[in-house]
Amino acid sequence: MSLAPNTLPGVDSIDTPALVVDLDAMERNIATMAAFCRQHRIAWRPHAKLHKSAALAQLLVQAGAVGACVQKTAEAEALVAGGVRDVYISNEVVSLPKLERIARMARSLQAQNGQVSIAVDSLEGIRRLAAALNAVGASMRVFVEIDVGQNRCGVQPGAPAVTLAQEVLRHPCLQFAGLQAYHGKAQHLRSAGARRNAIAAVVAAVQHTRQLLEAAGIRVPLVTGAGTGSFIHEAFSGVYGELQPGSFLFMDADYAANERDPAAPVFEHALFVKTQVISVCATHAVCDAGHKSHAIDSGLPRVWNSTLEYGNGGDEHGILRGATLPSLGDTLWLVPGHCDPTVNLYDHLVGVRGGLQHGVVERHIRVDARGALT
Amino acid sequence: MSLAPNTLPGVDSIDTPALVVDLDAMERNIATMAAFCRQHRIAWRPHAKLHKSAALAQLLVQAGAVGACVQKTAEAEALVAGGVRDVYISNEVVSLPKLERIARMARSLQAQNGQVSIAVDSLEGIRRLAAALNAVGASMRVFVEIDVGQNRCGVQPGAPAVTLAQEVLRHPCLQFAGLQAYHGKAQHLRSAGARRNAIAAVVAAVQHTRQLLEAAGIRVPLVTGAGTGSFIHEAFSGVYGELQPGSFLFMDADYAANERDPAAPVFEHALFVKTQVISVCATHAVCDAGHKSHAIDSGLPRVWNSTLEYGNGGDEHGILRGATLPSLGDTLWLVPGHCDPTVNLYDHLVGVRGGLQHGVVERHIRVDARGALT
Repeated sequence: MSLAPNTLPGVDSIDTPALVVDLDAMERNIATMAAFCRQHRIAWRPHAKLHKSAALAQLLVQAGAVGACVQKTAEAEALVAGGVRDVYISNEVVSLPKLERIARMARSLQAQNGQVSIAVDSLEGIRRLAAALNAVGASMRVFVEIDVGQNRCGVQPGAPAVTLAQEVLRHPCLQFAGLQAYHGKAQHLRSAGARRNAIAAVVAAVQHTRQLLEAAGIRVPLVTGAGTGSFIHEAFSGVYGELQPGSFLFMDADYAANERDPAAPVFEHALFVKTQVISVCATHAVCDAGHKSHAIDSGLPRVWNSTLEYGNGGDEHGILRGATLPSLGDTLWLVPGHCDPTVNLYDHLVGVRGGLQHGVVERHIRVDARGALT
Repeated sequence: MSLAPNTLPGVDSIDTPALVVDLDAMERNIATMAAFCRQHRIAWRPHAKLHKSAALAQLLVQAGAVGACVQKTAEAEALVAGGVRDVYISNEVVSLPKLERIARMARSLQAQNGQVSIAVDSLEGIRRLAAALNAVGASMRVFVEIDVGQNRCGVQPGAPAVTLAQEVLRHPCLQFAGLQAYHGKAQHLRSAGARRNAIAAVVAAVQHTRQLLEAAGIRVPLVTGAGTGSFIHEAFSGVYGELQPGSFLFMDADYAANERDPAAPVFEHALFVKTQVISVCATHAVCDAGHKSHAIDSGLPRVWNSTLEYGNGGDEHGILRGATLPSLGDTLWLVPGHCDPTVNLYDHLVGVRGGLQHGVVERHIRVDARGALT
């Protein structure tokens, strides 16, 4: 919802804990990524697993993105319900009820000149998908996922990917769209050189696979992948045609701990948990944001513009220590260690214009796919 | 919602990931705790920060609980909206908008012969609370929280608690209800002896504080606290009049790792994440439940009735390793490391009757206070 400009409440009116987006910083991040992709003539399809918001997915498309990536069928449904017309499920789906939902979505989007695409990594997965699509008369773009170092989903690069692409081509309802090649762990290697080397190995694996596919007479329309920590290397590779980074929009505390590559654009922190001090004693203060307010899988949050240290106080509390403790009732801003699962804890983001100190609440952004697990 | 008995779908119909309650196991856990508290003539007020469900809070009251504990104002509001009439916010609240909401809740519950109570640990907090209550003509029970080893909220045991109790007594809208004394860290000490020793120190601190209060002419109506890992010691202390454990209802994987005290009743795992294998390769399988499906603050989930090891695969995936890998499409059951923040990720729990293998879906239990952070 947007608020009427003449009645915009100030930042002070935001009760705690709340998840707050610095809209100015977020929009600068979007402009930076858009400029990078224009300059390097590469498509970008930001991952909506971060923001889970149809409004933000649409904002990114307006800035030049070709569509959105998601990980879950229910995330795709939430974005499509919110008006997004081009969604790629960059993940494997094998359950029959989900494949039926995807097939219905594909048919519905086709009728609107939109599309939904998906990743596959097994013969069985391809056959189940084709059966679901045939049952409703729909068709879909399919990427074969290769494991380029993440050691998670995907077949090994090379011959196994050719076998899967050949199976895709056997089903008229499937269009072989190319390769999904994402190395998530490379995003968080601290040294810029280590990230560059990791992606060099990824690119070699992709090139090898593409050569085998072409030798088998199979054209590879697109290679898609990359994240905020490494995307410059995929962009410069000459192999990737589409980048999937999502976190640049908000920037995690964890990404900020990476050594920056001089060639990489600079992004700002744009997502904050506003919290209040509810208890103070001689040794520490306690704030009202614990790990029900922010994810801790990539470390605890940092206190923004402060030398205070945030310590784990459990589900509902944070322990603040430092030379000068805050006072009872003071408010602080935390930078989450990992934005994706933090956003997933909230029904909406509070969008602030004009800075965290003196700004106003311009809009509330619904987290449409919060809890969209299936 | 309850489903009509003659159309109850089987467990197989639950798509993944889903948070599933074994209703039979949960009800046995409730009966066990109810019997313990009856036998030892002690009140119990289970912590709803675990289940966040008005229906489960009511089920516990029907089994003999005196009411529910919560940590957040919004949790209290969600339970009251769902018909719970006696709620204790076992936490400090100092923001004026929240105190106004609490005062309105107190007035509304008083009119229905219910009550809301709260913990305090500062003069300023007591004065703000009294002002909010006076503004609407309401009154409330207040517990003074003492820090008995958690090193979080609460004043030091002894004289500081007397000062706060005296301040409470200065405000006619406040009733001094006694002491809040909870040692959360003691719940997870692995050795039964270490937990017993930790609670012995807690009890000594409570007794000392009570003696000082009584010497100052202040009666202590109730001491409240304890959790699933330690409650037998608080129950046997002769000092506590009310127990707050909540986790016994579902039992975390982490609690199961505690050495059991022979005097403690036995509780069963009753909460599971159902997950499906979406990718298999030579070295591992991948399931569709990552840390957006379960909290990992107390460790990764265990795979139920299996020798498979669950490894972190990020937000949406789990990596399964073991001598025999499952097949594509297989479903597995995970026992979450920590139930409280896991429940907070879901809009509803799927209640299964008759076991996880051959049971039926009897009801969906709404997580009324999911995301209730403020």
